[in-house]
Amino acid sequence: MATPTTPLLKDELDIVIPTIRNLDFLEMWRPFFQPYHLIIVQDGDPTKVIKVPEGFDYELYNRNDVNRILGPKASCISFKDSACRCFGYMVSKKKYIYTIDDDCFVAKDPSGKDINALEQHIKNLLSPSTPFFFNTLYDPYREGADFVRGYPFSLREGAPTAVSHGLWLNIPDYDAPTQLVKPRERNNRYVDAVLTIPKGTLFPMCGMNLAFDRELIGPAMYFGLMGDGQPIGRYDDMWAGWCTKVITDHLSLGIKTGLPYIWHSKASNPFVNLKKEYNGIFWQEELIPFFQSVTLSKEATTVQKCYLELAKQVRAKLGKVDGYFNKLADAMVTWIEAWDELNPPKGAITTTNGPALKSK
Amino acid sequence: MATPTTPLLKDELDIVIPTIRNLDFLEMWRPFFQPYHLIIVQDGDPTKVIKVPEGFDYELYNRNDVNRILGPKASCISFKDSACRCFGYMVSKKKYIYTIDDDCFVAKDPSGKDINALEQHIKNLLSPSTPFFFNTLYDPYREGADFVRGYPFSLREGAPTAVSHGLWLNIPDYDAPTQLVKPRERNNRYVDAVLTIPKGTLFPMCGMNLAFDRELIGPAMYFGLMGDGQPIGRYDDMWAGWCTKVITDHLSLGIKTGLPYIWHSKASNPFVNLKKEYNGIFWQEELIPFFQSVTLSKEATTVQKCYLELAKQVRAKLGKVDGYFNKLADAMVTWIEAWDELNPPKGAITTTNGPALKSK
Repeated sequence: MATPTTPLLKDELDIVIPTIRNLDFLEMWRPFFQPYHLIIVQDGDPTKVIKVPEGFDYELYNRNDVNRILGPKASCISFKDSACRCFGYMVSKKKYIYTIDDDCFVAKDPSGKDINALEQHIKNLLSPSTPFFFNTLYDPYREGADFVRGYPFSLREGAPTAVSHGLWLNIPDYDAPTQLVKPRERNNRYVDAVLTIPKGTLFPMCGMNLAFDRELIGPAMYFGLMGDGQPIGRYDDMWAGWCTKVITDHLSLGIKTGLPYIWHSKASNPFVNLKKEYNGIFWQEELIPFFQSVTLSKEATTVQKCYLELAKQVRAKLGKVDGYFNKLADAMVTWIEAWDELNPPKGAITTTNGPALKSK
Repeated sequence: MATPTTPLLKDELDIVIPTIRNLDFLEMWRPFFQPYHLIIVQDGDPTKVIKVPEGFDYELYNRNDVNRILGPKASCISFKDSACRCFGYMVSKKKYIYTIDDDCFVAKDPSGKDINALEQHIKNLLSPSTPFFFNTLYDPYREGADFVRGYPFSLREGAPTAVSHGLWLNIPDYDAPTQLVKPRERNNRYVDAVLTIPKGTLFPMCGMNLAFDRELIGPAMYFGLMGDGQPIGRYDDMWAGWCTKVITDHLSLGIKTGLPYIWHSKASNPFVNLKKEYNGIFWQEELIPFFQSVTLSKEATTVQKCYLELAKQVRAKLGKVDGYFNKLADAMVTWIEAWDELNPPKGAITTTNGPALKSK
């Protein structure tokens, strides 16, 4: 595999970072991230100036930029919530996205070596997934591994990998109740595995350390309506994950989880989190059966078509759980409209509202 | 957790070992196995004397014993194939079974410590599984782990664990074609994880290092018709695994895979293996879709009822693949009859054909 001095997919990948503060955390990532282009989505007060360390190639969008570029469709992008990051997915023109939180640092592997998280994500995305049958030695495409006895030969080509979900050492991604009950728990276990989430199985997708193939699955990576003016927070990545999983299953694409680890430095405030989460904790009990039973039609042959079908069913089935889901269904449709406007089918001629103001 | 000096489930677990040779391999396992009762199923020539190291508590059954105890129903137990091990599951009276091959030795963890495989299996079996939703930090019941954000609270009780599937360092469990292509491949990767195979997902269950709850799932652990007089070998554990997975899914039980590792010392001959496997390699392409789509009725509320329904469907759907599957369906029914004869419902009075001759 390539080393950091010959970066993989240099011109095909954007790193998307949502933030409200100066990006000092990038210093530690410099050896790994500097060759790539960054898309910074500034949340909160747009007049605040975010400092980015010298030498990084980036464009930065604040709320004024979002409003200007999307016009009335900006309503689908959350404000005062890291869910705003999905705006970065939309304005990217690259094939791959890696998104990371600004409180995530470089972790070390058991030998003490710095983990190049991005390189591992790229390896995950460039090798197939195995969603149709479980391989007990984990990722069969990894060096030193293969399909075990009893794995059907017709399934060994695998499926294209759409998503690579990385994990976290130190502070685990717990909900507020678990944070409250286990304030001292740290994740010290380095599990040296990458595996495919099987078809038909839902999982909690965390947006902290996540990569995906924008061309394969981008329009499903909508992080919903969270934060300012919304009755819920901290379910943005979960929502995206459930929608994405249902759609990748339908389109026979794969999602991997496991390596790489990042070092998650600081637990967020559990009291604040509980306030954001409590509606989600109730609603989730309805959402999971919904996503477990939802089916998409044979006509849904693109991610966009799948997503619009899903929006329709969200309105029909979840609208009665809470009026919020009608708003969310509207926003899902708006998101796809905005996506298609910024990402016209190849060959089509369109105009946009121009580039970001603060592009470097 | 308990240490080897205070063995867990001492009176509730039997270790089942199929063999054709002296059991010298037990010397290495002595610190971990000696407190437990062994059931040795001698394969091949019944006149051969199998030596068992001093100090082990065991009973030994050879083919003559199988024939005597089961009478005409002995036809369901394979001969000249390690599939014969399932006879040991049937004659056990314990709640738990651990089965291990006689070419498997004690592995070391990354710190260099001997792995007590049995202790880890017991931990796996005594803690719940999570078949309904994937937890990205693996087994949430393990020390230092929990359910991550987004895991529905109503699912955190988990499901009873029926099976614990352990893995192998050194020689991986590859099929003959992979053995031929990668003769030098060794598994050196210690993956420090236990995870639940999600509901609806099939996996290749290897019988080399396997534990299960006999009361929960025993009658599904039939290793089929292999070896002498049969057109197939090396699919015994796979068959048991697919049947077991379909039934555990139906009965809302869980199957875990991952830790513990054993050290698999020697690869079997790939040319011999290919001869045993080649029919399986073809048939498997029909078997997997069969097991992926099979459904059991609401009336199938016990493992036995599930298994008999499955046998019926094997005959109806796989009989046309090859006549072998009609024989196998018959044997599946015979197996359940024999199981129920040796394991009458609690409270019922029955007679058996007496104990094994070579009981110690």
